[in-house]
Parts: sequence; C-alpha cells; structure tokens
Amino acid sequence: MIVHRRFEVSTRGNDDVIDLTPMLRDAIQDSALQCGTATLFVRGSTAALTTIEYEPGLVSDLAMVLAAVAPRGRAYAHHEHWGDDNGHAHLRAALIGPSLVVPFVDRTPLVGTWQQVVLIDFDTRPRRREIACLLMGE
Amino acid sequence: MIVHRRFEVSTRGNDDVIDLTPMLRDAIQDSALQCGTATLFVRGSTAALTTIEYEPGLVSDLAMVLAAVAPRGRAYAHHEHWGDDNGHAHLRAALIGPSLVVPFVDRTPLVGTWQQVVLIDFDTRPRRREIACLLMGE
Amino acid sequence: MIVHRRFEVSTRGNDDVIDLTPMLRDAIQDSALQCGTATLFVRGSTAALTTIEYEPGLVSDLAMVLAAVAPRGRAYAHHEHWGDDNGHAHLRAALIGPSLVVPFVDRTPLVGTWQQVVLIDFDTRPRRREIACLLMGE
Repeated sequence: MIVHRRFEVSTRGNDDVIDLTPMLRDAIQDSALQCGTATLFVRGSTAALTTIEYEPGLVSDLAMVLAAVAPRGRAYAHHEHWGDDNGHAHLRAALIGPSLVVPFVDRTPLVGTWQQVVLIDFDTRPRRREIACLLMGE
Repeated sequence: MIVHRRFEVSTRGNDDVIDLTPMLRDAIQDSALQCGTATLFVRGSTAALTTIEYEPGLVSDLAMVLAAVAPRGRAYAHHEHWGDDNGHAHLRAALIGPSLVVPFVDRTPLVGTWQQVVLIDFDTRPRRREIACLLMGE
Repeated sequence: MIVHRRFEVSTRGNDDVIDLTPMLRDAIQDSALQCGTATLFVRGSTAALTTIEYEPGLVSDLAMVLAAVAPRGRAYAHHEHWGDDNGHAHLRAALIGPSLVVPFVDRTPLVGTWQQVVLIDFDTRPRRREIACLLMGE
C-alpha cells in the first residue's frame, strides 16, 4: 500500500535547519501502515535532507563546516550563467543530497533518540519548501 | 508491483556529469505504475548519484569544490595497495553516495524544475557505467 | 512483502569502518524475496552508511579526508551544549548520511565487485550499533 503526503515548510534560507521528524511521525500515524519505508525527497536544488541531533550548537557547526567546503561569495561559474548569487547553495545541496529513506516498524520511524530528520535550506532568501513523503508498506 | 530497468551510459570519467533524468522519466512512463519510488543505484565505487541543476557552470563548480576536499594526485594509501591513481575518485564517490530514491506520482518523478538526477563519474578514464533502476509502486 | 531485520555490530568508534555486505547478502538469501529494495538505516547521529571499496588504504584515506573537513578537537558549539567532545562525529555523520537503499535482483544485491556497503562509526568510543534493514519486494 502507498500513501503520498506533501510536507510544506517555510524557511529563512541561509542554512536554516527545519526538524521534519514530527511531520514524519504524524504522517506514519495517520496512515493505516504498520511497517514499511518513508521516502522523503525535497524538490529543488538548493536544499537537502539528512539527519542530525537537532540542537542549536550543531546546527551552527554544520553551517560553519559547509561554509569552508563551499564558501558563499566565491566567484562560482554558476553565477556567470544566471547572474545568481547562490552557487554555494547548489553545491552544498548536491553534496548532502535531496533524498532520505527512513524505515518504520509498529508505526514508528526507526530513528535514534537524538537523531532528527532535517531539511537544510541553503538558498540566500526565505523559501517555501515542498518535501514529498511517500509511505510504502503494509 | 516491481519493474527492474538497467541504465547504461558512457562517460569520459574525470568528474563527467551525466543527466539521467530523461532515462528516469522514460522508465516510469514505460511502466504500468502510477505512483511509487524509483531506486537508483550505481554499481562501482568510483561514481556517485545526486541531484543538481544541470548547467555547465555548476558542473565545473562541483568538480572544483570536490577537488579541494579530495585532491587528485595526493599520496593516498589506496595507491600503495593497488598501484592505482584514483584514490580521490573512490573518496569523492563515498562522500556523495551511490544511491538515490526518487518518488513519482501520476507517472512523473517529483523532482524540481531545475533539479536533475545525475551520475558523476570520478574515475580517471572513460567508463561504461551501469545504473540499476528499480521501480516499486502501483 | 516486507521483511524487517536488525543488524547489530560492535565498533571501535574513531572512524571504524565495518563491512555490512555479508549481513546484507545473508538477509536477502534468508528471505523469500527474489527482487526488491534493501533499505538500510543506522540509528544514531554519530555514524553513517555509504559504499566504498573495503581495503585498509581507502579506509584510512577516508578518515583523513573527513578529518580535514570536520577536524576532531575544534571548539564546536555542540561541545558547549552537552560538554561533549564528539562534535566532529555528528558533523561527519550528517554529511555522509544515515540511509542507503540497495536494489536486489535474483536474490543478489546489485553492488559492484569492488563496492562494499559499510558503516562508519565516527564516535569517540567503542559502540554497539544497530542498523535497520527493511527488505521490500516480491
């Protein structure tokens, strides 16, 4: 059986991290499924999905580490193409990736106690983001 | 219902980026499935899958950023093991990852307008690559 | 049909890399499934899953590359929050990611010959790790 849900969140952009775990728990609880997989996928190429212990310290540490790998303000070739200023956002998103698959059993996602499912929005402005959530199971 | 497809592409290696989105769209259209997940997986440890806005500027930016993280030509321990020269290719592939799961609804993958599903081939020579595509749904 | 398995492994922490491929092969063989997806997910926010050619040289190269991106011993904001010393472990795990989906056909995972499915434990002490393995297919 398949259930398709769509999560919509507002972000401030600029490495904003949104905890999707409550939405994921609700989606699983609201479905008739006991056991299966939740496939999460963020539409758009300047945001990404991963898991992290969601506390303000780590959230700022993650931004710092990614800023060293793909700094904002560098003269990326992407900027010449579109006149954009968000080359770093595209690169960070491609490194982390847009998809995450979380198994669930007994209507509960199998994440750790200190492990949250998060969206990171790397774009340079506030965005409305859509995350597809496809539950598949029995 | 499950449909197994195999994508084969030729690459030039050396960070070549191939857009798999048309193949993915065709595979979904050719199946009888309306809704489900497409699991993509590249066989081999020197290539990876992610999404990116597929334009030449970003493609070269991504290569530049990864070259700083895992530079070509460094004295990797892997080279001593096999006499290989592609340690950087293995490392970049492990960082990005080999698998990507894309949900589809109404026979359409839920990627953003400027978001393409891509293979990056980090190896140091042209390669023939095989990507497994497993469609699961109803 | 869905089969839920739980892999448990002991690690030494500190970038220890464990090859999960034999466990994955056994789980698929022991199931009645011919074809489908194996969703692997590590519970906890200081370990990650990817694929790599599992040989000691690359394992140490990967640790070196990640140590440059998120060095141990830096004054991470996370340490102020909990008095922890493992901020680098959280960051490396978030970059690599906790989930991996491997398709299988004819009871065989579609990994390459030199491509192993691995757990990397970034925490600063030995750990007992649990990896959920959800097989879905027919």
